[in-house]
Amino acid sequence: MTIREMARQAKDASVTLAALSSDSKNKALQAVAAALRKCGDDIIAANAIDLEAAVAAGLPGPILKRLKFDAAKLNDVIAGVESLLALSDPAGVTLAATELDQGLNLCKVSCPIGVIGVIFESRPDALVQISTLCLKSGNAALLKGGSEAMHSNRVLATVIAEAAEKAGLPTGWLQLLETRADVNEMLKQDDLIDLVIPRGSNAFVKYIMDNSNIPVMGHADGICHAYVDDDADLEMARSIVVDSKCQYTSVCNALETLLVHRAIAAEFLPAAAEALRSRGVKLLGCPDTCAIIAAEPASEQDWDTEYLDYILAIKVVDSIDQAIAHINRHGSGHTDVIITNDEQAAKRFQSLVDSGNVFWNCSTRFSDGFRYGLGAEVGISTSKIHARGPVGLEGLVIYKWLLQGSGQVVADYAEGRKQFTHRPLPRD
Amino acid sequence: MTIREMARQAKDASVTLAALSSDSKNKALQAVAAALRKCGDDIIAANAIDLEAAVAAGLPGPILKRLKFDAAKLNDVIAGVESLLALSDPAGVTLAATELDQGLNLCKVSCPIGVIGVIFESRPDALVQISTLCLKSGNAALLKGGSEAMHSNRVLATVIAEAAEKAGLPTGWLQLLETRADVNEMLKQDDLIDLVIPRGSNAFVKYIMDNSNIPVMGHADGICHAYVDDDADLEMARSIVVDSKCQYTSVCNALETLLVHRAIAAEFLPAAAEALRSRGVKLLGCPDTCAIIAAEPASEQDWDTEYLDYILAIKVVDSIDQAIAHINRHGSGHTDVIITNDEQAAKRFQSLVDSGNVFWNCSTRFSDGFRYGLGAEVGISTSKIHARGPVGLEGLVIYKWLLQGSGQVVADYAEGRKQFTHRPLPRD
Repeated sequence: MTIREMARQAKDASVTLAALSSDSKNKALQAVAAALRKCGDDIIAANAIDLEAAVAAGLPGPILKRLKFDAAKLNDVIAGVESLLALSDPAGVTLAATELDQGLNLCKVSCPIGVIGVIFESRPDALVQISTLCLKSGNAALLKGGSEAMHSNRVLATVIAEAAEKAGLPTGWLQLLETRADVNEMLKQDDLIDLVIPRGSNAFVKYIMDNSNIPVMGHADGICHAYVDDDADLEMARSIVVDSKCQYTSVCNALETLLVHRAIAAEFLPAAAEALRSRGVKLLGCPDTCAIIAAEPASEQDWDTEYLDYILAIKVVDSIDQAIAHINRHGSGHTDVIITNDEQAAKRFQSLVDSGNVFWNCSTRFSDGFRYGLGAEVGISTSKIHARGPVGLEGLVIYKWLLQGSGQVVADYAEGRKQFTHRPLPRD
Repeated sequence: MTIREMARQAKDASVTLAALSSDSKNKALQAVAAALRKCGDDIIAANAIDLEAAVAAGLPGPILKRLKFDAAKLNDVIAGVESLLALSDPAGVTLAATELDQGLNLCKVSCPIGVIGVIFESRPDALVQISTLCLKSGNAALLKGGSEAMHSNRVLATVIAEAAEKAGLPTGWLQLLETRADVNEMLKQDDLIDLVIPRGSNAFVKYIMDNSNIPVMGHADGICHAYVDDDADLEMARSIVVDSKCQYTSVCNALETLLVHRAIAAEFLPAAAEALRSRGVKLLGCPDTCAIIAAEPASEQDWDTEYLDYILAIKVVDSIDQAIAHINRHGSGHTDVIITNDEQAAKRFQSLVDSGNVFWNCSTRFSDGFRYGLGAEVGISTSKIHARGPVGLEGLVIYKWLLQGSGQVVADYAEGRKQFTHRPLPRD
């Protein structure tokens, strides 16, 4: 099949999917969980081929770790699929209801987006998460995983697609792309595909945007900031900064820039620097920072850099407003935190920082679909429309307006023979 | 100022706007209404210059009608601005709240999108509607109106921007672009502008998408369908078809294609054709249609054409599913209606037709923000993410996730020392 034919089949499937009952979708999810359990050996064997090739190619340790799909990972993803059963169906929900006139009722009802293309990285468990989130929300999906996970993804996609189809889902609801050329072809199908979710670097997301008219929900880099206010509990600030930077450095919600109020810089920075250095963090600083602690001078470019590594850029600021301006200028709209005991300052920070996740007195690493209690996530959106922050089931639906009449025509209202009532109705 | 500088100013203003209270925004709206009233003569005089030029240029009657801005239009737009006062603020609403753990509370709070670029057609009243919807929702706006309304738009934009700024809004929250070159320059500012709403033809919207990485909320053509089911009340069907087609032909929610079930075609089509012809509608038909009534043969291209005129394409179909498939293949995702007495058929149509507005037994012309009771609208979205159908205040906000802690770090949860509670909280 060509990519166009695959997209056409997904589009046709999406229409049927949109009309499936919650019960049918849950039965399909149960079938998927059972099939994953039954085919566990095949999946792990396929993953062994990928792992062997990755080792032979000399891929770095962290990638090997993410690529690995063993019995423990299998149990995790099966538990993840089963946890989706308990979540309520995001589609078919009446979001608003209005009587426009007697016998003329308007409902705003949530529905699936349609066909979603997701391009993700090396973890095979991401394929399971994304495909089952799409199933639960009633979307057809075209998926492209990391090439180093090709064998694992083939088996996983086949097992999931076939189990769901046997349980009543339409053929073609889930399809796997394998090459970059496939992705480029997919980006041209703007009449068939409704949304693309690229997970990867800013450069990659920009490449997708430059090469497609399909709307893009950006899952891009995170240049996350912590601002330590002059009214902060400095011990708490140190602990939050260490966790935000070091708990897992290679992820988008890890800290990249630390902003410190001038009034507490001389007291806070030495203790923070010691804690960070003992974890192996290299420090870069503005001139004021370098006057207080030993740090390499930060360049202008450092404020715009996502290190994803044991590196932290530090800047001393004169005020909370300077911190907010710095974040709005250099941040990526991902996750930023203020550490302060001053509620007014916290509210100001949370209302003026234009990011998807704005925190007060806790680690940036909490910015995550599981930790938010959303179930799984298809990614973290740094877009400013549709869905922002961790995107779970709710980010995968849109709505349609359903109007039920009894023969009403607009001429009667335009010519004054009838009037609108616009009475809110219960959503039932 | 360059367009880049204007966009930068709007971006800076948007940060302040996002933090304004509902009360401040309402006071600014009141000031705008008062200023429009006070400057009415200037506005009408500027409009007279545009009208004179339009007449001299030989622009057609319907355009002159839309361009005209007289005392009646002035009163309408002032009433529109005042009606926004009564609507609740769409920003700052807590959409969800969850306790992640003791002392760690997550809130999902609505907030403005930021900076919105709107490109609209000849009506100067659209400028007032769009700018005040942006004000109420807390967005900064760059507006480009039709060049034939240049003088009217200049006065209106100045009056509105200055009145709001005197009432406390940040400088640069509302700016007017004047040329196509300005628009092209605006489309490059994807780091400063969050959303573009182009109102115009499909070709124009596609041009915008091809030339910008800014997300586009499509306000494109409407190829709207009515499907007359075999179980329809034929008298009701005739009345709905006539209203949908003729009540106002040059708008996006007017009917363009009529689908008729074969079982009732011989009975329905002659009466419908007579009613349509008496209104001056030219009929195009499929071979089966032409065998029943006098109609010109429709070409394949007709099913994909938005006439915006007294022309209707008619096709006989064998089943409701054939009608649904035709609509999903040829429609533009705008507004489609089924006429039937069969509730099962109506539900099937409403769940399977993938359009923003799907109606049962009423005219397609009801698809409109005012008629839906949304107040005004910035346009009708045929996009499938963010907002669909008539877009009022709610379509101009997004949300951010605010997390308030007391020093929590992720390491405690990752290493099993603490557990998430994920307990729903009351929303305020």
